[in-house]
Amino acid sequence: MEALTPFQYELVYNMLSLTVAGMAAAGLFFFGSRMDIAPKYRPALLVSAIVVFIASYHYLRIWESWQAAYELVGGQYVSTGVGFNDAYRYADWLLTVPLLLVELVAVLGLAKRESGPMLRNLTIASVLMIALGYPGEVASSAGTKWLFWALAMVPFIYILAVLYGRLATAVANESGEVRRLLGRARTVILVSWWVYPVAFILPMIGLSGGAAEAGLQVGYSVADLTAKALYGVVIYQIARAKTASDRDEAERIEPVAA
Amino acid sequence: MEALTPFQYELVYNMLSLTVAGMAAAGLFFFGSRMDIAPKYRPALLVSAIVVFIASYHYLRIWESWQAAYELVGGQYVSTGVGFNDAYRYADWLLTVPLLLVELVAVLGLAKRESGPMLRNLTIASVLMIALGYPGEVASSAGTKWLFWALAMVPFIYILAVLYGRLATAVANESGEVRRLLGRARTVILVSWWVYPVAFILPMIGLSGGAAEAGLQVGYSVADLTAKALYGVVIYQIARAKTASDRDEAERIEPVAA
Repeated sequence: MEALTPFQYELVYNMLSLTVAGMAAAGLFFFGSRMDIAPKYRPALLVSAIVVFIASYHYLRIWESWQAAYELVGGQYVSTGVGFNDAYRYADWLLTVPLLLVELVAVLGLAKRESGPMLRNLTIASVLMIALGYPGEVASSAGTKWLFWALAMVPFIYILAVLYGRLATAVANESGEVRRLLGRARTVILVSWWVYPVAFILPMIGLSGGAAEAGLQVGYSVADLTAKALYGVVIYQIARAKTASDRDEAERIEPVAA
Repeated sequence: MEALTPFQYELVYNMLSLTVAGMAAAGLFFFGSRMDIAPKYRPALLVSAIVVFIASYHYLRIWESWQAAYELVGGQYVSTGVGFNDAYRYADWLLTVPLLLVELVAVLGLAKRESGPMLRNLTIASVLMIALGYPGEVASSAGTKWLFWALAMVPFIYILAVLYGRLATAVANESGEVRRLLGRARTVILVSWWVYPVAFILPMIGLSGGAAEAGLQVGYSVADLTAKALYGVVIYQIARAKTASDRDEAERIEPVAA
């Protein structure tokens, strides 16, 4: 591992700690606000809470591993010999990526006939994506890294295409506030998910040294906060807007039935 | 204890950490989703939550014990002299196996006349099974290991036979979604429970070394996640489906009664 300046080391240290707190805070919000929305959409909020609690746990472990990996020698942070465990990210993704997909399917309120097969295919694709990325992450040869990156990109693009396509249909079928928020969910997914395959190849295209390592860790933290906590906030907003529009619809129908 | 390669050591390390997080996440989900199902089935969800919280605690301890048992010397993980404490698994099973049976009995909604004696017999059998397995686990002679394995298999097969038989009756009495899910519960139990007696005999049939130890630990983690967390998800699905079908039935009956 490359040596880091105190600024680089501390920036990552503080960003990891911020992410522990940010994820747990988002979890409390999602957990506590379930009762404000219609029962139909509550599982989406509960799953959002669980995703960020899992992420908070992993960021606590990553933060501990960061401290164990470096020591201050002669004004620089150098390796202690204990490796920095980036694999926590893979353990986290293995648990949370399928759940992020469950969140979206739950808030869209799809019929079981559609949601069942879709979730099954997306879960298989996300497990494949993470399982294929991991050997590339731990490999030392650039050739092996590129091979597994390319293999993992196949399920990655499949997942994004399915989500993007399904959200396009949902946007077309909705109006007003719900429509606007579904568009926002699409943007959050599209922007934050691309950080991961790009971050993966940074060391392979010659970006190395302390600045690259610090940038990578800060970038992952921001991407995770966006893809999990901010995404969860959008899911919450969609659930609230749908609760309100379902209520309006029920009020419009009732007088006719009476 | 045999030496491990860094890959073997880290794979187990990360899998144990993933299991800590996965069990706790499942617990939050079961705890949080109780209110979405009918009061009759809520105890099943609460017990599901407790089972995985207990497992999360034990996996945290197993993970700590794993770290205390190995140190990196000359590129290999070798024994520190502190034994890896596999007995945490027995403490966990002693608490959780009877509760896994309670979950199933609670979600089936059996009459007390039937559920009382059934739970009593199954609890006695599961305590016997674990108490008989433990002396075999800690014994060093293969003869003693085989003896206690064979003794523990008697209550093991009794429990599986009772569960399988009772689930067959339940499947026959239900229809639609509930029937399909009860079949799934049966599969989850049957597949995951067999891992334990098979894992027990692996060292006795000559499988040893780093790869066998790593495989055993990963296998136990996957089996526990299946037998507790995934099984809990199926219990949740059954509870949800029964809540819906009880509601439909009440709606069908009411107009006639009025």
